[in-house]
Amino acid sequence: MPDARFQPLPGFRDFAPQECAFRNYLFNTWRRVAHRYGFVEWEAPTLEATELYLKKSGGELPTQLFRFTDQGERDITVRPELTASLGRIAAAYQREYTKPLKWFEIGSCFRYEKPQKGRLREFVQFNADILGEAGEGSDAELIALAIDCMREFGFTAEDFVVRVSDREVWLRYAAENGVPEERVGDFLAVIDKFERDRPEACQEKLSAFGMKREELVDFIQNPPAGCSPRYDAVLAELEARGLAEYVQLDLHVVRGLAYYTGLVFEIFDKGRSLRAVAGGGRYNGLVATLSNGAVDMPATGFAMGDAVIAHLIEACPAARALRDAVLKPDACDVCLVLAAPEMRPQMLSLASVLRDAGVRVDLPLSPAKMGNQLKRAEKIGARYAVVIGSEYPEVELKNLSTRESIHTDPDGLMTELLGDADEA
Amino acid sequence: MPDARFQPLPGFRDFAPQECAFRNYLFNTWRRVAHRYGFVEWEAPTLEATELYLKKSGGELPTQLFRFTDQGERDITVRPELTASLGRIAAAYQREYTKPLKWFEIGSCFRYEKPQKGRLREFVQFNADILGEAGEGSDAELIALAIDCMREFGFTAEDFVVRVSDREVWLRYAAENGVPEERVGDFLAVIDKFERDRPEACQEKLSAFGMKREELVDFIQNPPAGCSPRYDAVLAELEARGLAEYVQLDLHVVRGLAYYTGLVFEIFDKGRSLRAVAGGGRYNGLVATLSNGAVDMPATGFAMGDAVIAHLIEACPAARALRDAVLKPDACDVCLVLAAPEMRPQMLSLASVLRDAGVRVDLPLSPAKMGNQLKRAEKIGARYAVVIGSEYPEVELKNLSTRESIHTDPDGLMTELLGDADEA
Repeated sequence: MPDARFQPLPGFRDFAPQECAFRNYLFNTWRRVAHRYGFVEWEAPTLEATELYLKKSGGELPTQLFRFTDQGERDITVRPELTASLGRIAAAYQREYTKPLKWFEIGSCFRYEKPQKGRLREFVQFNADILGEAGEGSDAELIALAIDCMREFGFTAEDFVVRVSDREVWLRYAAENGVPEERVGDFLAVIDKFERDRPEACQEKLSAFGMKREELVDFIQNPPAGCSPRYDAVLAELEARGLAEYVQLDLHVVRGLAYYTGLVFEIFDKGRSLRAVAGGGRYNGLVATLSNGAVDMPATGFAMGDAVIAHLIEACPAARALRDAVLKPDACDVCLVLAAPEMRPQMLSLASVLRDAGVRVDLPLSPAKMGNQLKRAEKIGARYAVVIGSEYPEVELKNLSTRESIHTDPDGLMTELLGDADEA
Repeated sequence: MPDARFQPLPGFRDFAPQECAFRNYLFNTWRRVAHRYGFVEWEAPTLEATELYLKKSGGELPTQLFRFTDQGERDITVRPELTASLGRIAAAYQREYTKPLKWFEIGSCFRYEKPQKGRLREFVQFNADILGEAGEGSDAELIALAIDCMREFGFTAEDFVVRVSDREVWLRYAAENGVPEERVGDFLAVIDKFERDRPEACQEKLSAFGMKREELVDFIQNPPAGCSPRYDAVLAELEARGLAEYVQLDLHVVRGLAYYTGLVFEIFDKGRSLRAVAGGGRYNGLVATLSNGAVDMPATGFAMGDAVIAHLIEACPAARALRDAVLKPDACDVCLVLAAPEMRPQMLSLASVLRDAGVRVDLPLSPAKMGNQLKRAEKIGARYAVVIGSEYPEVELKNLSTRESIHTDPDGLMTELLGDADEA
């Protein structure tokens, strides 16, 4: 356990090497799957003009900003999310890239919220978006990418579900049930809280629209066949990909933010023990809003956070096993051990040759007993120790897992090790 | 060129996919070389309590902070550098790791400075530090790591030099020339500006110490043999590693910050066209200062920024060639082309099989003409197009660089492509 006297700010995390190895495991997994889907990486500045976030209306976001005035009197904000920057940057660069844009990003976001399980003030999001494509094929591509990220972490259809919904269904429902246009946003907000509100509180809100909660429960539980042609199209695409078992139509989902326009989805653990691990949907008007109408591109995207997924991995044995495999200390391939101090120049020369060949090498930085050097080699997870003594250029190559040992010279060493390094 | 209407804040950068590919090239190079040296990665929070930075005295840093009061009335700062966090985190976690700690970090830092060539308000630093080791072996290991990063980018001894100095030499000089202890910091500040100040301005400052500028010019140009046993020891270590040609003793270097205690160094391009590309040194007392005396560890470290190195790469043909090789569009291995719209489910199924096998696949998200599909395949840098027509499961595999083409079935496709994917 870390020494409690040296804490980061509340809701912020330190990544000592163990924690950083786990973070990199998440990053590498997201990156690998995104690459398989033909997505390319982009990154936004960490600070943006606050107005960029205020253009995106709705939600609690404006109250959760790390917002301040800089030395040049600018109103700036430490980014709470990436979609606003994406809209700005895509508007700036879209002419230089073939459409649709399939872009992903991995980086920190910052929200002043009450820290709790799965909720931090600095957290990492994996963002994936498709811009310049309006068809359901892109919604399906995106949902498939989200599913494959979960599968790559070791989760199965037993562990998680993608709840897909369609805002259009609710907009039609509102129109057919006499909700005036200016109150549709309020109506969607009631649906958004439908599962979390106490039934009486929910009914009270619905009464303002002349609706009965039981009718809505029934509508959600038995959505009319064909109510969302979009969902049906996405389901067909996912079926062809062999991914239909991961999704279900669930009209509870509307997503809090006002800018979503069509299909929306959230990924939850099957036990619903935590908040959503990922969420997203179509936001066709947002790029135009963010660019003041200069660039209009249909868009769909999702974000997956690192805090919730860390808890889900911990709770799932298969996912935990994949994680634990990357958390073993693994600082180097070879630890050089100096048995004869006068051979230090030869040891340093050998270190350079091995490193130039791509081998990860550690070595004693000051005089130390053989036993301590070997102990360090084991602790940092070296696969081999190479003992350099007075009989140099003969060296001893010790395999630290099998305990086997051979005597060889630097050329023989290279042959032994490079075979290994190539595999790694 | 990006559309100028959608700019980030001044001194901040957008990373569209091309720029992000270059950024990732820097990150991957730093990471690869650090791993070869047996360093492990860590990361700090992006925001810290301001007092952490104020504990580190000296320099212009306190005037350049993005500093503000958060919603909980905390005085916080967007990190301007990483050493303060490193000291805090190393103090918290040091019991859990074998010493010496060899830790590296890659991440953004933020300083409110006037933006100019090689100087930004958000920039990335590669930080490498060795904690818990006082001997010159660790200074040499660190300088060797810095040199090998430069070599890995394609630079040679013709392109850059590591100017190494020793603060102890100046402390002794000050003592021998009657500088009172409380004014030693001011004296070091004069040396720090020695090269940049006009000679008259420099002489004026030196007169306060009763010194003549010419004497100091002579001392710097002809440092007495053996004046820095530390430097001699480091040079011997670097000689044994085959890296002596990259370093020179240069007493001009003292580094601005007050916390350096021994050897210090800076890397410059040979033409001295830009500020330092990297700088660092020994800071033995800092961990104790940052932990209020609770943890004391000798330490040495350096930081290399991304802004200066980008300019140096641009100016060096060999480094540019390495860079340009990674900047070619390369979004996927295979672009699926749908010639018969009714075969869309088969195409989607094939995409899943290929992606599950690790192949990077792009595909049409909505109906498009064959010609446009093939054009997209070329533009995003696909190596192959796979044409799916009505004769499926027979498909056509087109190599987009050689223009060769074969007809095969999904099994044959896997064999052809996986051989390739394994190499990649």
